[in-house]
Amino acid sequence: MANSESFMAAALAEATEAARIGEVPVGAVLVLDGKIIARSGNRTRLANDVTAHAEIAVIRNASQSLGQERLLGADLYVTLEPCTMCAAAISFARIRRLYYGAEDPKGGAVDNGVRFFAQPTCHHAPEVYSGLGETAAASLLTTFFRSKRQDD
Amino acid sequence: MANSESFMAAALAEATEAARIGEVPVGAVLVLDGKIIARSGNRTRLANDVTAHAEIAVIRNASQSLGQERLLGADLYVTLEPCTMCAAAISFARIRRLYYGAEDPKGGAVDNGVRFFAQPTCHHAPEVYSGLGETAAASLLTTFFRSKRQDD
Repeated sequence: MANSESFMAAALAEATEAARIGEVPVGAVLVLDGKIIARSGNRTRLANDVTAHAEIAVIRNASQSLGQERLLGADLYVTLEPCTMCAAAISFARIRRLYYGAEDPKGGAVDNGVRFFAQPTCHHAPEVYSGLGETAAASLLTTFFRSKRQDD
Repeated sequence: MANSESFMAAALAEATEAARIGEVPVGAVLVLDGKIIARSGNRTRLANDVTAHAEIAVIRNASQSLGQERLLGADLYVTLEPCTMCAAAISFARIRRLYYGAEDPKGGAVDNGVRFFAQPTCHHAPEVYSGLGETAAASLLTTFFRSKRQDD
């Protein structure tokens, strides 16, 4: 559990950095054989890429560095419940375990929304662990959106 | 309708090229103001990227060339019903109209599977037109997978 907590802390650090540069504060790390092999926050604005959520950024980065499409045995830590797009990407990449922080009733697709991993059109589902680092993850998002509203 | 047919023909050409280079034969083009602004087939194998479906490839390419995240007013032509990941990306990119060829009961997410555009967690849905170029699109896929099985 100490390891899981430190990996989620690394994901939270990525979320904090994302907020600092004006991105929605969600962060992720990908772990293989006990080591972080990719880390990123959201980069949709900086990259002009709606698909550059933290989860997809780390999957792409890890696939590039390993030279393989599928990330068998890899575990993904992300501060917010993955959306529909990311849940499907996690399935395609054959991620072994998914740890997420805060639930996302409006956009999540794991324990909310389309609950993709439980659908017949989902051909690989990771083991899912939720609530790790939840308070810190949710607090980052609340603070970010409150400050955005004050800017408007 | 002549225009829609020629845009789907261009998507089919991308699917054919994808098959030639060993990728699953799905192709897409993105059209803005009556002109094709991005075209691609699947590139998951070549790019070592599970997210490099034809739809996501053209969305990313168009966003890069236009320097903007959202593709308001753009229409997407794709030879196969988008999967769960791509349906959500299409929604995020604010695509205006989606034209797709063949249905995909096993992996589709528009008229099959999670039917994402009809869900409460989908915050933008394109107009959807299906069946355009369906026979040619399905035939490319059938031929490709038959030849793969013979290789095994």
